[in-house]
Formats: sequence, structure tokens, C-alpha cells
Amino acid sequence: MIKTDILIIGAGPTGLFAVFEAGLLKLKCHLIDALPQAGGQCSEIYPKKPIYDIPGFPEVLAGDLVDNLMEQIKSFQPGFTLGERAETIKKLDDGTFIVTTNKGTEHHAPVVAIAGGLGSFEPRKPLLDNLKKFEDNGIAYMIKDPEVYRDKKVVIAGGGDSALDWSIFLADVASQVTLVHRRNEFRGALDSVEKVQELKNQGKLNLITPAEIIALNGDDTLESVLIRKISDAKEEQVLEVDNFIPLFGLSPKLGPIGDWGLEIEKNAIKVDTFDYQTNIPGIYAIGDVNTYPGKLKLILCGFHEATLMCQSAFQKIHPDKKYVMKYTTVGGVNGFDGTKKEAPKAVVKKIE
Amino acid sequence: MIKTDILIIGAGPTGLFAVFEAGLLKLKCHLIDALPQAGGQCSEIYPKKPIYDIPGFPEVLAGDLVDNLMEQIKSFQPGFTLGERAETIKKLDDGTFIVTTNKGTEHHAPVVAIAGGLGSFEPRKPLLDNLKKFEDNGIAYMIKDPEVYRDKKVVIAGGGDSALDWSIFLADVASQVTLVHRRNEFRGALDSVEKVQELKNQGKLNLITPAEIIALNGDDTLESVLIRKISDAKEEQVLEVDNFIPLFGLSPKLGPIGDWGLEIEKNAIKVDTFDYQTNIPGIYAIGDVNTYPGKLKLILCGFHEATLMCQSAFQKIHPDKKYVMKYTTVGGVNGFDGTKKEAPKAVVKKIE
Ligand SMILES: Cc1cc2nc3c(=O)[nH]c(=O)nc-3n(C[C@H](O)[C@H](O)[C@H](O)COP(=O)(O)OP(=O)(O)OC[C@H]3O[C@@H](n4cnc5c(N)ncnc54)[C@H](O)[C@@H]3O)c2cc1C
Ligand SMILES: Cc1cc2nc3c(=O)[nH]c(=O)nc-3n(C[C@H](O)[C@H](O)[C@H](O)COP(=O)(O)OP(=O)(O)OC[C@H]3O[C@@H](n4cnc5c(N)ncnc54)[C@H](O)[C@@H]3O)c2cc1C
Repeated sequence: MIKTDILIIGAGPTGLFAVFEAGLLKLKCHLIDALPQAGGQCSEIYPKKPIYDIPGFPEVLAGDLVDNLMEQIKSFQPGFTLGERAETIKKLDDGTFIVTTNKGTEHHAPVVAIAGGLGSFEPRKPLLDNLKKFEDNGIAYMIKDPEVYRDKKVVIAGGGDSALDWSIFLADVASQVTLVHRRNEFRGALDSVEKVQELKNQGKLNLITPAEIIALNGDDTLESVLIRKISDAKEEQVLEVDNFIPLFGLSPKLGPIGDWGLEIEKNAIKVDTFDYQTNIPGIYAIGDVNTYPGKLKLILCGFHEATLMCQSAFQKIHPDKKYVMKYTTVGGVNGFDGTKKEAPKAVVKKIE
Repeated sequence: MIKTDILIIGAGPTGLFAVFEAGLLKLKCHLIDALPQAGGQCSEIYPKKPIYDIPGFPEVLAGDLVDNLMEQIKSFQPGFTLGERAETIKKLDDGTFIVTTNKGTEHHAPVVAIAGGLGSFEPRKPLLDNLKKFEDNGIAYMIKDPEVYRDKKVVIAGGGDSALDWSIFLADVASQVTLVHRRNEFRGALDSVEKVQELKNQGKLNLITPAEIIALNGDDTLESVLIRKISDAKEEQVLEVDNFIPLFGLSPKLGPIGDWGLEIEKNAIKVDTFDYQTNIPGIYAIGDVNTYPGKLKLILCGFHEATLMCQSAFQKIHPDKKYVMKYTTVGGVNGFDGTKKEAPKAVVKKIE
């Protein structure tokens, strides 16, 4: 059982910044995310695109913003349960919560902050017999640890950035990479498309287009896939593979959180702007996942909401303590890892 | 008469970022500030100190944050009325406002956003006869344009960062700089104190401590000051000067805005968190100057408030237009100066 002060569901920019604000109040955080990496939409959908409306950044790549946030919260040592979806919540008699993931990991905390954005990112799956049987036995929809594919024969399906980028990456890791796409055209960053073309020309990557995978074979684990060309001839070929990675995009689903008894409006969780608490005391909702009059689904708004939420969480966790806010410039940042950041103090010094 | 869409009172971080959010909505802004420079508390009180809680910046000097914000809003070409205090407001029959400064400059806008922080920064003045007579005739409490002091004989009084920094700066500009302080000890950044010591040793700066200025002389303009040593002997000396700059700190005063008929609570303006509007329709209050349940006087909160305020201002200015929010990553930033920032588009390209 993982124990923490504030359990944050969703490691997007909002959830990440909440770790920092909680840390200033000496509260520890643990984050759960369905994705294999932190950063939410910024990391999953547009890591290489510039954002222009983060205050103080005339321009920042979404991926760099996430890196900066990770650096900013590092000394508060957040815990992470990645690649798992928060599934159920139970309120104990003492008012604390237990949140369990789809993989059975249990988390215990007095405060839960849902920073789930548009929902947990769930992969779009191909319609194939046997799909379920091979999940985790050769088929994966997200890549958590590329080393799993070292010296393996891999087939990737898809025509967007993820399919392109992972094909490029795995070309150096796997013994064989085949990229299958329903069309001849790919949609992605120009340099990714060009790089795939180059790898193909060098014979480091097999490209089969326009084509689709129409059957999966194997006893316990995946052994081969059947690929059919999309053309009048419809020729078919069997390809021996260890792994099949369909990358057809992830789509966010509010999912199980929708059944937790929270007041929902337009697929978002209703909160009070005083502290971004939901109708269930002790459960907060911050960032894209919440709604209130005037709500804007912007990153900078999530930062504000996370900050006010932490003040309220502090009161809930320490009902007897009075917290006096100190500016970071004045009080510094005292990491849980023993580090301290502090502004240089003014000196009082005689001039003679 | 200066005309604009949103008249912003206060050019601190909140007011500056409001220019950006307004610009995204194609609304023009003009800012009034009592200080000679933009940046509010960040520029005036702690420009060289690091802030640790600006989201995405593990550490940023307050002055650099202001520079970044100025860069971020540049293409929206804000106007500035600096060194003047917004004094009176008049609501016209058509619901628009005229705001007039203490120097008589008039501004006309359909929306007024008060981003006045802790109030307009007003200098602490020494208690001296004739002070008023010489104001703007030899005496100044803030330095707007250092060139005014070129080849002049200047006496500065004070013992903090401003007194130290301007003594250093003017040592290269004025023909003579004398620094007078009531104590032998100065309080400021170590390198400033050391630099003043060095300039003194080199004879480029006169230092008279512990001492104070006790009288001002001159016909129309200031001609000399009387300096008395703080010691048993109390020796006095007359120093011929063109300029006297007492730098005893600035203290913020809500001031005239307090009499505009706005609901005030604990020296701050009450707003609704829906759009940060005050009790007077068309007048908003954002940043440190406002209050609402849960309010925190933090820079990141001002950014959020400014953003929601602009949405509401847009509706007020264009009641018939429906605004559909576009992410900057998707819609780019279209400057009023004709520049355009835009994320590189994905390509759709055949790989053969
Ligand atoms: C193309 C694009 C461009 C954008 N451009 C801008 C822009 O220019 N400016 C701007 O401010 N915003 C922009 N946005 C929006 C911005 O990305 C979101 O506002 C921001 O990501 C919201 O952050 P968040 O932390 O609230 O949620 P998210 O980033 O959505 O993160 C939520 C995380 O929670 C996880 N999660 C949800 N439910 C569960 C569960 N039950 N179990 C486990 N994990 C769960 C999800 O997997 C996800 O990783 C853009 C979005 C897109 C898609
Ligand atoms: C030493 C110190 C350290 C700090 N550290 C941090 C920190 O680490 N993190 C953080 O988030 N915050 C910190 N703060 C607070 C932060 O600086 C403020 O929250 C922020 O400056 C508020 O911005 P603002 O734009 O709302 O107002 P301000 O920065 O106060 O700017 C308001 C401006 O309005 C002008 N004004 C007011 N009335 C009038 C008028 N009638 N006419 C003309 N001009 C007017 C003023 O002259 C001023 O320039 C710190 C503050 C101090 C003093």
C-alpha cells in the first residue's frame, strides 16, 4: 500500500505543479497516470510543439515545459504509479481514501486531487480476433520501456507521429522493424517523415503500405501477423513477429472516475472556486478535468487551481496548524531531499 | 486623450500579462503606472532576487520575469503612461470610462482593469521645509531618466539598494555624486555595497555618514543643501548641488482608487471569481489588489485572474461576437505589429 499526503490522479502539468505547491506546505505527493510518462496532453499529444501563453515564456515547447516542471518539483520527491489507471475509490471511516488502479496497486491518502485532464488516455484498438489474448503477450498500445524490444521482431501499425517516432527509435533497438499503414501518406513532423524515408532507403526499416493487419496468430504469445495490401489484388502475407504495436492514437476517457459519485457537468467535475473541492469533501479536482463558471481549459489556470487546492488540503490534513504563507523569494524552497534553495540575503555592511 | 480597449492601472506582472491575453482576443491595452518602469513589486522591490514558484521556472530573477513578460507582450504593442498615478475615474453615459492621472493625462476605454497591486508606489519623503517648492525643481524621489543628471552635482540620501545602485550608476553620469546616510552601515546586495566602497576609495563618490540633510536652499531651483553629521559635534556643512534625490523607499498606497466607489475589504477590492469584476460593471480588479474567498497574493494567481478577466472584457466590448477559444499552439499568436508566431504544421507526405 502506497501512503502519501495528497494522492494526485493525473500527472499532467496541473498535477505536476500541485506537487510543488504541496511541497512548500511540507505535504508529500504521489501521482498515478495511465500513461507511461508524466506530462499529460503536453507529453502525449504535442511534446514538440511550442506553447505561447505560458506566462513568462514567450515560447516554450510543451515537452520542455514538462521537463521544467519535473525539475521544479524534483526536490519534493514525488512518487509515481505510471501506466496504471485509477479505477476505484473507497472512503474509510476516518475520512481517508484508498484508490486502487486497474492493476490492483493501492494508494492511501487523506486527500485526493483529481488532475485527470480530459480523462485517462486510452488507446484506440484495432478490431481483431484474439486481440485480448495477446495483450501483454506480444501486443502493446504504448511503449513504456523500449528495452523490451531489444533484438525482437516488431511490427508497428499507424500513420501519425507516434508510429513514425517509435519506428525510428526502435530501428536501432529491435532486430527488425516493420511499419504498416493503411495509406501511403504519413501525417507528422516533417523531420520524422523524412527520417523514416531515409531508414527505409537504407534498408533499416520495412515499410508496407497501403496495408493493414487482419489477423493475429500464436499459441500463448504472438508469433505472426497476417498483413493484407489495400489494393484491388488484396495480396496477403504472413509476417513472423515477436511484437505488434498498434499506434492508432490515444483518446482520453473520463472513465471510472465518472462513477465515483462526483457531480459531473459536461464530462467535467464540478468544483467550488474557493478551493476546487468537489461535492465529496477531501476530493479536489483541478485543471482540465474540472468545471466552474468561467472555466477555461488552459495550463495556466490549472497552476492557479493547484495552488489554491493545496492551501485547503493543508487545512484538512492539519486542522490545528495555522499556515502563514511565505513568498518563495523570502522563505526559499526546502526540498524533502535535504536541498535548500534560497535568495541571497541582503548584507548590512559598513562603508568606510 | 488616450484611447484603448482595456485600460490597465498598474504595470506589475498581472497587468503586463493581461496585455497578452487581451491581445489574443484582438483587444488593445494601455497601462498606467506611478512608477517610472514596468514590473510592479518585482522591478521596484526585488529585481535581482530569485522567485521559485513561477510554474515552469525552477528559478527566475524577478527582473528577468518582467523582461520575459515584456518580450511576450511586445507584439501586442501596449501603450504606457509611466510615472503618473491614476487619480480619478468618470463613467460616461455610454458606459465607457475616462481615467485621469495626477498629471492630467486622460485615458478613455470601455473597460478598466485595476491591477494596482498593493497600491501605487509612493515615495517616503524627508521632513524638510521647502520640500514641495523644489519638487521637480531639483528634487526627485524616483529616477525616470538618468540623463537628466548628466554633468550635474547630485546628492543622494538613503542606505538601501536604491541609494546604493543609483549612486553607482550616477557616478558615471553626474559630475559629482554625494551619498548621505544616517548610519555608517548600508543594507543591500553585497556587490552593491562593495562597489560603493570601491568608488569611494577611487574618489569617484563622496560619502558622508552618519549624517542627514537638514535644510534646502535656492531661489527657484535647488542650489544647496545643509548636511549635519550625526555625532556629538553635530558639525554642519553646506553642499552646492543641482539635484537632491532622497531614496528612502517607496511604500504602496491604495490611494485614490479607494474613493472610486468600489467595494473594499481589508484594503483590497472585492471581486467575483467568475470574471474578477468589481461591483461597478466594466471595472475589473486582478492580482494583488483584489480579494475573494481563498485569495492568495501570488504572481501565478494574477496570471489566471488576468486571463479570465479578458474573456469577460471581450464579451463586454463585443456583445454580439461569440469568441471561440483557440489554443496558442493551434492558432498561433498574431501580433498587432504584423508579426505571427505559429507552431510548425504537421505534414502529410508520402513515403515511397
Ligand atoms: C494540441 C493541443 C494544443 C494545446 N495548446 C495549448 C496552449 O497553447 N495553451 C494552453 O494553456 N493549453 C493548451 N492545450 C491544453 C493543455 O494541454 C491542457 O490544458 C493541459 O494539458 C491540462 O493539464 P492537466 O494536467 O489538467 O491535464 P492533462 O494534461 O490532460 O493530464 C491529465 C492526465 O491524467 C491522466 N488520467 C486521467 N484519468 C486518469 C485515471 N483514472 N487514472 C490514471 N490517470 C488518469 C491522463 O492519462 C493524463 O495524463 C493544448 C492541448 C492540445 C491537445
Ligand atoms: C520581497 C517580495 C518577495 C516576493 N516573492 C514572491 C514570490 O516568491 N512569489 C510570488 O508569487 N510572489 C512574490 N511576491 C509578491 C509579488 O511580487 C506580487 O504578488 C506581485 O507583484 C503582484 O503583481 P501585481 O501586478 O498584481 O501588482 P504589483 O506588482 O504590486 O504592481 C502594481 C503596480 O500598480 C501600480 N499602481 C497602483 N495603483 C496605481 C495608481 N492609482 N496609478 C498608477 N499606478 C498604480 C503600482 O505602482 C505598481 O507598479 C513577493 C513580493 C515581495 C515584496
